[in-house]
Amino acid sequence: MVDLSKEAPSTEGPITPRATDYPQWYQDIIAAAELVDQAPVRGCWILRPNGYAIWELIQRDLDRRFKQHGVQNAYFPVLIPMSFIEKEKEHVEGFSPELAVVTHAGGEKLEEPLVVRPTSETIIWHSFRRWIRSHRDLPLLVNQWCSVLRWEKRPRAFLRTAEFLWQEGHTAHATPEEARRFAIQMLDAYFRTQDEVLALAPIAGEKPLHERFPGAVSTFTLEPMMQDGRALQNCTSHDLGDNFARAFDVTFQGEDGESHPAYATSWGFSTRSIGAVLMAHGDDRGAVFPPAIAPIQVAIVPVPGRDDASTKAVDDAAALALRELTLAGYRTTVDSRSGLRPGAKFFHWERRGVPLRLEIGPRDVAAGQATAATRHDGQKRPIPLSALQTHVEDLLEEVQSALGDRARAFRESHTQRVDDRAGLEAAVGDGYALARWCEDKSCADEIQTETRATIRCFPFERRDDGFAPLPDDPGRCAWCGAESRRRVIIARAY
Amino acid sequence: MVDLSKEAPSTEGPITPRATDYPQWYQDIIAAAELVDQAPVRGCWILRPNGYAIWELIQRDLDRRFKQHGVQNAYFPVLIPMSFIEKEKEHVEGFSPELAVVTHAGGEKLEEPLVVRPTSETIIWHSFRRWIRSHRDLPLLVNQWCSVLRWEKRPRAFLRTAEFLWQEGHTAHATPEEARRFAIQMLDAYFRTQDEVLALAPIAGEKPLHERFPGAVSTFTLEPMMQDGRALQNCTSHDLGDNFARAFDVTFQGEDGESHPAYATSWGFSTRSIGAVLMAHGDDRGAVFPPAIAPIQVAIVPVPGRDDASTKAVDDAAALALRELTLAGYRTTVDSRSGLRPGAKFFHWERRGVPLRLEIGPRDVAAGQATAATRHDGQKRPIPLSALQTHVEDLLEEVQSALGDRARAFRESHTQRVDDRAGLEAAVGDGYALARWCEDKSCADEIQTETRATIRCFPFERRDDGFAPLPDDPGRCAWCGAESRRRVIIARAY
Repeated sequence: MVDLSKEAPSTEGPITPRATDYPQWYQDIIAAAELVDQAPVRGCWILRPNGYAIWELIQRDLDRRFKQHGVQNAYFPVLIPMSFIEKEKEHVEGFSPELAVVTHAGGEKLEEPLVVRPTSETIIWHSFRRWIRSHRDLPLLVNQWCSVLRWEKRPRAFLRTAEFLWQEGHTAHATPEEARRFAIQMLDAYFRTQDEVLALAPIAGEKPLHERFPGAVSTFTLEPMMQDGRALQNCTSHDLGDNFARAFDVTFQGEDGESHPAYATSWGFSTRSIGAVLMAHGDDRGAVFPPAIAPIQVAIVPVPGRDDASTKAVDDAAALALRELTLAGYRTTVDSRSGLRPGAKFFHWERRGVPLRLEIGPRDVAAGQATAATRHDGQKRPIPLSALQTHVEDLLEEVQSALGDRARAFRESHTQRVDDRAGLEAAVGDGYALARWCEDKSCADEIQTETRATIRCFPFERRDDGFAPLPDDPGRCAWCGAESRRRVIIARAY
Repeated sequence: MVDLSKEAPSTEGPITPRATDYPQWYQDIIAAAELVDQAPVRGCWILRPNGYAIWELIQRDLDRRFKQHGVQNAYFPVLIPMSFIEKEKEHVEGFSPELAVVTHAGGEKLEEPLVVRPTSETIIWHSFRRWIRSHRDLPLLVNQWCSVLRWEKRPRAFLRTAEFLWQEGHTAHATPEEARRFAIQMLDAYFRTQDEVLALAPIAGEKPLHERFPGAVSTFTLEPMMQDGRALQNCTSHDLGDNFARAFDVTFQGEDGESHPAYATSWGFSTRSIGAVLMAHGDDRGAVFPPAIAPIQVAIVPVPGRDDASTKAVDDAAALALRELTLAGYRTTVDSRSGLRPGAKFFHWERRGVPLRLEIGPRDVAAGQATAATRHDGQKRPIPLSALQTHVEDLLEEVQSALGDRARAFRESHTQRVDDRAGLEAAVGDGYALARWCEDKSCADEIQTETRATIRCFPFERRDDGFAPLPDDPGRCAWCGAESRRRVIIARAY
């Protein structure tokens, strides 16, 4: 058990600048925004209301996209018989030391130990085996929102936690083409959420063979760049071919009357994405949340006047603004705490990453305006109270776009097209290298040993209807000089 | 591990009539509606998409109500140190044999065992202790959506399962009055969901002292009546006074500068409520779902014509109706399966409890109508395709009201005001007894031994702003003849 002092980490402590100590900065902005608290079990965190609200908003967005594709949610048990995990040997090697094992229940030792789910594919495919008989049962498109548990040696809030929240989608299809198309559709759903909602401007691509999920034909990934130039893979979608169907003995009777294996996909998106948001957008004053997922989008700060009458006029205007914006559906708060100066309140909401602050003082009231301050760029501008809602809507849309544009520009300016070792080494010290690679694992291992960078993906180009690989670009591997057909993204990563 | 055959229970098997075998009927209608499947771990069920969809709709409704009261969602870890559970001794006696215990993780034996949460108040109040300093931190209104695990000796789907989904709300307040008011507000939120959405027409009331939650000052409950006359308590709200604050050492600095204990509530609502819906509304042809929580609200069944042209006209009309109703937000499906006669399709959707079926055949198309069949009463009537949406809206509202009215009428006609043993025995054989009781636990024990009925609650009257106890009605205990101030609901219960 972790020994915890009585008090949670101070939300008013100093924030270490990024340039001084990037990992400490990350911890500091999490504390300042009151997103998590340490749990008494090692490697676990409590998602406080501010942190959970972000996950709820991400969840709502993703869930809507899944359902548009016909995906149905379901719930599978948290405990899985140990024999299920041992069945799929490749799997065990991946998870075994990470398992939490229930050995006693009902006051007795269990005949067979149970594990707290590290992922649910064994139990879900056990069920698919019972549910799939005929081609009429396909496609079977199932998703689960839940927590999973993987004992972590070096836990870090959001990025690497023993327990985390995620969704895991598992589907079965009649043909390999349909399964592959579906895996890419889910990558597309993830991309839209990460691009339009989280403003992360991620790179989409396919993992190299040696980085595939065990059992996958292809693993697709999104790799947004953090402000230290490192990649943070925070979701994957797998085309599993018929490997799962063969491992779990799932066949269906086709229209031809014959028995066929089903083709599978799986895809997951977790609270790790919140870590990506923090590291992509935060600054030395704290977190910066894109409006689409900000727990609070607008913080109204009344600035008292010199007398009761002008203070009351300010408070009335603030109350009216709160009502108007709340009714319009904006997550809005008024900071009416007594005994705190306006400057301290500005500071408070800045540290919590609220995208838009509305200051209303006596002069503003007299001028029929509020002073709108945008968190990400520190700009202030007056907006008329008579058309508050329209202006707030426009401003929040501007902020959402600006954050995405900033992340895209940052990634582009920290991505270098390189053709040799020196170039590669320089590029991965600053961000992403777009370099030819021989596709040989031993070469990738050497790159990692020498530069701490890994092959992130074969990048995709965005198309209206999904993605396409970059055109071939034959040449020599930037590292070993062997033949290479195409370029990959190479970067240091979380 | 439970040995499971390859196939899930047949959804097309016969349904045992209620009068023949009520418990078997319950299992049969669950299988017919494809709500759950047995899990490989004893006492656990898988919530299949149809079952989970109902929970999602209940969750959405409740979550909206909680948020209107300022409640914020959060997430606390699934594993809790054993010492947390042992801390609160009263608690251990309640849960100890029900705990699932993790003894190994990360490939090692743990220094301290962890339990899979049976409920989260120990970890939540451990956090409250860290988060609450001043009266400014109050009220603290936290809710969690999660699964909990309690090893069950006699599991039954939805009603009594080892793992189940629920929400648990935990709040801290500055005064005992505010806490009590909040506990009743949450009972009110539950009541509205059970009355307006689940159509259960529940009785609200306060539990007798000996049935209170350990540590509670008062436990409030909802007790809808099932069709066998038994009560099914499926949510509770507790006024915990300052007992939790004292147990977990949670104090706050008041406006007076002094240290005070916080006052607490907790309240929970689980998937057990789905069992109540099934047993309150189902009939011998299968489940009957209220439109507000029906996974599918409208099933359109095209009835083919004698030639291709008339069949195409039918299919076109069905597709148009699907599009119109889906766009209007109704959960709608078209049963376009080939090789099945319309009668078999009617049967299929009836067994799944779909509240409204629209039959469209060549004669309907010619007359510009659909034939609407309502599941709960088997009535059919034509509705014009030109005003489909309005008619569907009206019909679904009518069905929703009719189910609530039917449940209310059933409960009222199976509730008897009785004043002696014979009356009490007869009443609990048929439904609820409204009887005077001496409020002595030993008398309640005797009633239970002799009649298998228990004291359900001191019933409340509904008021616009919440609830009020029934007026006092002094007299003699119907069982033992001792003095009694007021009447209680006595019934057999699940």
